[in-house]
Amino acid sequence: MSNAADEATVLERIERVRAHGDKLKDEFVTLAHGAGGKASAQLVEQVFVAEYGNDTLNEMTDAGVMGLAALAAAAGTSLSGGEQLAFSTDSYVVNPIFFPGGSIGDLAVNGTVNDLSVSGAVPYGISAAFVIEEGLEIDVLRRVVADMHRAADRAGVKIVTGDTKVVAKGAADKLFITTAGVGIVPASVALRAGAVSVGDAILVSGPIADHGMAVMLARGDLALAAPIETDSKPVNGLTRALLEAAPQTRWMRDATRGGLGTVLNELAKTSGKGVAVYEEKLVVREMTRGACDILGIDPLYVANEGMFVAVVPADEAEAALSAVKALPGGEEAALVGKIVAEPASAVVMVTGFGGTRMVDMLVGDPLPRIC
Amino acid sequence: MSNAADEATVLERIERVRAHGDKLKDEFVTLAHGAGGKASAQLVEQVFVAEYGNDTLNEMTDAGVMGLAALAAAAGTSLSGGEQLAFSTDSYVVNPIFFPGGSIGDLAVNGTVNDLSVSGAVPYGISAAFVIEEGLEIDVLRRVVADMHRAADRAGVKIVTGDTKVVAKGAADKLFITTAGVGIVPASVALRAGAVSVGDAILVSGPIADHGMAVMLARGDLALAAPIETDSKPVNGLTRALLEAAPQTRWMRDATRGGLGTVLNELAKTSGKGVAVYEEKLVVREMTRGACDILGIDPLYVANEGMFVAVVPADEAEAALSAVKALPGGEEAALVGKIVAEPASAVVMVTGFGGTRMVDMLVGDPLPRIC
Repeated sequence: MSNAADEATVLERIERVRAHGDKLKDEFVTLAHGAGGKASAQLVEQVFVAEYGNDTLNEMTDAGVMGLAALAAAAGTSLSGGEQLAFSTDSYVVNPIFFPGGSIGDLAVNGTVNDLSVSGAVPYGISAAFVIEEGLEIDVLRRVVADMHRAADRAGVKIVTGDTKVVAKGAADKLFITTAGVGIVPASVALRAGAVSVGDAILVSGPIADHGMAVMLARGDLALAAPIETDSKPVNGLTRALLEAAPQTRWMRDATRGGLGTVLNELAKTSGKGVAVYEEKLVVREMTRGACDILGIDPLYVANEGMFVAVVPADEAEAALSAVKALPGGEEAALVGKIVAEPASAVVMVTGFGGTRMVDMLVGDPLPRIC
Repeated sequence: MSNAADEATVLERIERVRAHGDKLKDEFVTLAHGAGGKASAQLVEQVFVAEYGNDTLNEMTDAGVMGLAALAAAAGTSLSGGEQLAFSTDSYVVNPIFFPGGSIGDLAVNGTVNDLSVSGAVPYGISAAFVIEEGLEIDVLRRVVADMHRAADRAGVKIVTGDTKVVAKGAADKLFITTAGVGIVPASVALRAGAVSVGDAILVSGPIADHGMAVMLARGDLALAAPIETDSKPVNGLTRALLEAAPQTRWMRDATRGGLGTVLNELAKTSGKGVAVYEEKLVVREMTRGACDILGIDPLYVANEGMFVAVVPADEAEAALSAVKALPGGEEAALVGKIVAEPASAVVMVTGFGGTRMVDMLVGDPLPRIC
């Protein structure tokens, strides 16, 4: 439990852990670290609490408890009854766990922050549950945990609760992390695919396909090297600015696994409308496009981890675009297409020469364990 | 996204899936089921949405969105600003995934329901994130998902969001599930270890050590068979009744991994007080005690999954006990000890002959992957 009156105790303990420096002598995670006894407590104190320590986190084993009024205030509102709680989760099994520009740690935080953000919520608290393969170096775990802490700070969220399980060597691959998150959707926000109307504009917040290609190349089993970095980052600042500039925004979504092509298909199928995308408006970095071409992969189906797509009414499109472009991480945002009546429930790509081709949902899996 | 106006669409889709029966032809989970494309969508619709389907769940890939006023109402209160949001998570890696009396599915729901309950919250929404080893039989997944649905119904909570990842054969052991949960702590509840006072009574809600022994014996690698069932069940009804009967309750905790001995040690260390337990008051079922004796395991350190310990002021102890005993699952509750001044920060067991022995924290791991 971590009710308000316990805060002093928790903060004192964090101070104590920090003042005494690193006292965890183990170099590798063992089954005992997952048993709930002394070794577990040491791991939690020395690795997790020492890194994340804040006034809500308590022991990483119980519920984090947060004042509802504070959550609402963080979302720029106060409790009137019309607010909604957004609640999201994702497991991260990315392989390798470190790759150019990021790691499983910042991915796990950014992914959940972004899921909340595109639901219209202002993210507040994040949970972090670890399944660790016996034998993982403690230093590797520390690096991942530090990445999570940095990502949480960047997004302005707190890691408030968590869990650690250890399984025998061979029963998992190094490290899986599941995050969940909570945030408040102000009463003024009402996003839904059903609100999407013919003529609405489609905004994409940045270049596509960087994350998937960065992870794929980091595996090193392709005869190809290119300096491509993941786009892993929080988009909550961008979505908030967009919702302020374009209050009639219909729908938002981050285009992670399955890529932009899959997300737009889901929008088309859920809304019953058509989605037209202009190929020349889509931003794909030169290096990423080259790698996709060589490997025969369509960048439309490659995962992104710091990008979202929004549908905004035509008369708010320019304001939305300006708001997103004005912020770091949104400089390359673009209006890439529009909602059309036909083809209903489908996505069509308009090519540079005025031709069109259908964009279907992803079939199969070109890139397993990409997030 | 699943805002209110989308509900019709979601419910329609659930109806459609149910009406068309089982159309998922695959017998085994493949990497394609984790890729975010067509196969993923089919798995989610046919296995998860078909089973859990409710008005909040939408596609298992986005944030579940719940009205805050409804959460508060479920907790028997209305929004005044003093309520707190409780938020908890746990990963489940239990091996085997089915065992007498339960499975990884009901464990994953009950565990998070119980973490929320002992924080004083009324649980409301649960998330479910799956990491699945390629090759798992779809029927096994269905059984687990059905167990989760039954457990959620029994606890009165909704599964509102989720995620599915698939890893290659050998990169995980069958199935890991991470649940998170949210609930509201009414403004009247203020539990904290710091409130524990000398003379307070210690209530334990049921027999101990059944879960850990049931799982251990289910592994079949011990030359011992006994009809021991897990105690896996939700305790939210019990904790709510206890808080009503004993409003000055100081602290509660479920005694999962590490067992009652570890939890009482954490209470002693956090509160600075001593904990005295009367051995003859602890309920250990005969079969469970026998199995522990044969294997040389102290039942105090064996995991429970449907039991909690509460510290209540002496003058509310009998009322608390009566309230818990009156409910199904609480019949064997007992007042097992009290808070003492000495030994400070430690747990002492008073034996039947009036002797005492110190109860230390668990060292090592007698029972890996017990939850």
